[in-house]
Amino acid sequence: MNLEGLRVMGIDPGLTRCGLSVIQAGKGRQVIPVAVGVVRTPSDAELAHRLLRLSHAVAEWMDDYKPDVVAMERIFERGNVSTVMQTAHAVGVMVLAAAERDIPVHMYTPSEVKKAISGNGRADKKQMTAMITRILGLSAPPKPADAADALAIAVCHCWRAPLLARGAAAASLAAQGAASTPRNPVNGKA
Amino acid sequence: MNLEGLRVMGIDPGLTRCGLSVIQAGKGRQVIPVAVGVVRTPSDAELAHRLLRLSHAVAEWMDDYKPDVVAMERIFERGNVSTVMQTAHAVGVMVLAAAERDIPVHMYTPSEVKKAISGNGRADKKQMTAMITRILGLSAPPKPADAADALAIAVCHCWRAPLLARGAAAASLAAQGAASTPRNPVNGKA
Repeated sequence: MNLEGLRVMGIDPGLTRCGLSVIQAGKGRQVIPVAVGVVRTPSDAELAHRLLRLSHAVAEWMDDYKPDVVAMERIFERGNVSTVMQTAHAVGVMVLAAAERDIPVHMYTPSEVKKAISGNGRADKKQMTAMITRILGLSAPPKPADAADALAIAVCHCWRAPLLARGAAAASLAAQGAASTPRNPVNGKA
Repeated sequence: MNLEGLRVMGIDPGLTRCGLSVIQAGKGRQVIPVAVGVVRTPSDAELAHRLLRLSHAVAEWMDDYKPDVVAMERIFERGNVSTVMQTAHAVGVMVLAAAERDIPVHMYTPSEVKKAISGNGRADKKQMTAMITRILGLSAPPKPADAADALAIAVCHCWRAPLLARGAAAASLAAQGAASTPRNPVNGKA
């Protein structure tokens, strides 16, 4: 499967700080950075205003960069309940923005992202930032951490998508094989 | 504070089943049912498609009934984590729909709703359905339960909003009083 030219938007979801990135797949495992940034919403503002602000920002990124696919970090369900709930509200709004534009969304757990980028599902922030800086050939480490995470998620998708596609194709071929097993001809014309 | 004519949309949030209602405030504590229904999304569909479907349905209700305010049940954070997360995604999408139309959103806990409707914060479903049927003068109990809950949340807002407003007004007056305490005149012209 050749992904060359595929534009991937990476999202590290959050309501107070949301990391956004766009990268483009090159030849083989090559990945080219296109954009990276962080959207912030004031924690003392009303939920409705925060979600509206986030929705506008994400829509603007999608309309400006026209990604083919969105890769998002799956929410880590432990920790402060009210932060998790806020992040879940934000995810709802961002998945909706993608759905409204017919852009497929893939979710990856933090350890899937870490494993794809560094080979170690428990890599720390420092290792991840160093790896993503090298992989994308950046002159300086991306800041803040949410921006680096958003890039890592997008690269994770670029590198995992061919494997996922190959797996799906194999499953589909196997299913086809099962369905199209030739029957014995019952007359001489076959 | 006279609420007469105020249109309240009540939402019992959920992704598989979401209860929606619209009621209108009459004189005093009178409440008039306008619409009630349940939006369902297939649990085997992708999250993106489910959120899009819910968003369209809620937008249609808001545009058809033009509520002045949305009252929503605050998510109960215990229970099945993946159901809670799905509901939180749905809440994000519905709060956004209200924000996009400049409709204020108020959240009430399940026990606030139960207390407002039945006087008992621990009332069971049967009691709640009986009360809401009587309060709204319905010829039959609303079904399913999500529809009855959506009506109860809207009525809860109608009955609590004047108290909240009075509390806010009192606090504001007290603050004004403190700020405008007359100074003693220092010359005879005062």
